[in-house]
Amino acid sequence: MNGAILVLSGPSGAGKSTIIEHASDQIGEYYFSISTTTRPPREGELDGVDYYFVSREIFEEDIKAGQFLEYATVHNNYYGTSLKPVKEALSEGKLVIFDIDVQGHRLVQAKMGDFVTSAFITPPTLNELEKRLYARSTDNDTVIKNRIENAKKEIQAVNEFDFVIINDVVEIASSKFATIANASRLKKSAEELEKLVIHWQDGSK
Amino acid sequence: MNGAILVLSGPSGAGKSTIIEHASDQIGEYYFSISTTTRPPREGELDGVDYYFVSREIFEEDIKAGQFLEYATVHNNYYGTSLKPVKEALSEGKLVIFDIDVQGHRLVQAKMGDFVTSAFITPPTLNELEKRLYARSTDNDTVIKNRIENAKKEIQAVNEFDFVIINDVVEIASSKFATIANASRLKKSAEELEKLVIHWQDGSK
Repeated sequence: MNGAILVLSGPSGAGKSTIIEHASDQIGEYYFSISTTTRPPREGELDGVDYYFVSREIFEEDIKAGQFLEYATVHNNYYGTSLKPVKEALSEGKLVIFDIDVQGHRLVQAKMGDFVTSAFITPPTLNELEKRLYARSTDNDTVIKNRIENAKKEIQAVNEFDFVIINDVVEIASSKFATIANASRLKKSAEELEKLVIHWQDGSK
Repeated sequence: MNGAILVLSGPSGAGKSTIIEHASDQIGEYYFSISTTTRPPREGELDGVDYYFVSREIFEEDIKAGQFLEYATVHNNYYGTSLKPVKEALSEGKLVIFDIDVQGHRLVQAKMGDFVTSAFITPPTLNELEKRLYARSTDNDTVIKNRIENAKKEIQAVNEFDFVIINDVVEIASSKFATIANASRLKKSAEELEKLVIHWQDGSK
């Protein structure tokens, strides 16, 4: 079995975590990539679960050491994905799932495009997204308005993704996600293809 | 549901038809594209099942009328895929499966790339392919040697395909094929994505 990367993007409130949870028994072993950030933990957030919370100093050292697959600054805080756990999971043949934004997707494509399948997950309409964000009431109005403005920008990038999942009915969206995740495992990198052709011609089995 | 195209290529003897048959109850409704040819039917071959058998004159008229999605000349005979049944099946939301060669895949990609997912199916090694071709004894030595020379050329094009399926154990290969076929249905064309974004912004549901 080969490792593979599945990048999920889409507005906060699209239901990405719910979909992954729903599908988790259909998609085999996977590693959900946890981002590293310098922003302080919010109430209820746990280190190593929601994020790896680190200081600015450590984050900047890691940047210099080339330890990030991708990183960005949002509202003066760093957010990034460490390369090491991703490489480990890939070498163990796991499916690595990323929940990152459109910009992060571009960076991962640029660095590891060979392994990447990507899906954009969104509620059916902007109205529906607004409704869900207000209904879950975990964010204040300013944060929600910010999320909506971001969503309006991100939807313009759907054509950069291999798949788009409209999360209307969660069971349907989860089953689509599982299909995509399982197909993503079957993608072969250029390196694997080269080996395959050599082995094929060589004829030994 | 959206129509989609799944192109299968790979050497004769790779087990493509067996794999499709095995997976047929897992992949929903599909239309298996039947090629048109000017070569005479072999013993046991049926018109409308194995091929549409037509005269050279009719084939050339159809070329002029732009009725082929792709066509080629092999050993002085024409082989081609008519556009009409493919378009009909797509408009009915069916998955259209093609069994065509590497060159045919390029032509279909060029004309309808938006809808296309592709998989190269092959036995694990060249040796194994030879064994299978001799074992099934439907072809004479010259034909088999020809198929093997073709296979050696075609394997060089695996990197043009989205997926490669090694048909070692047919149950495993069929299950991989079903996963790929089901994922291919979820691919959206540029036109569909455009509509999706407009609908999303518009907000009506």
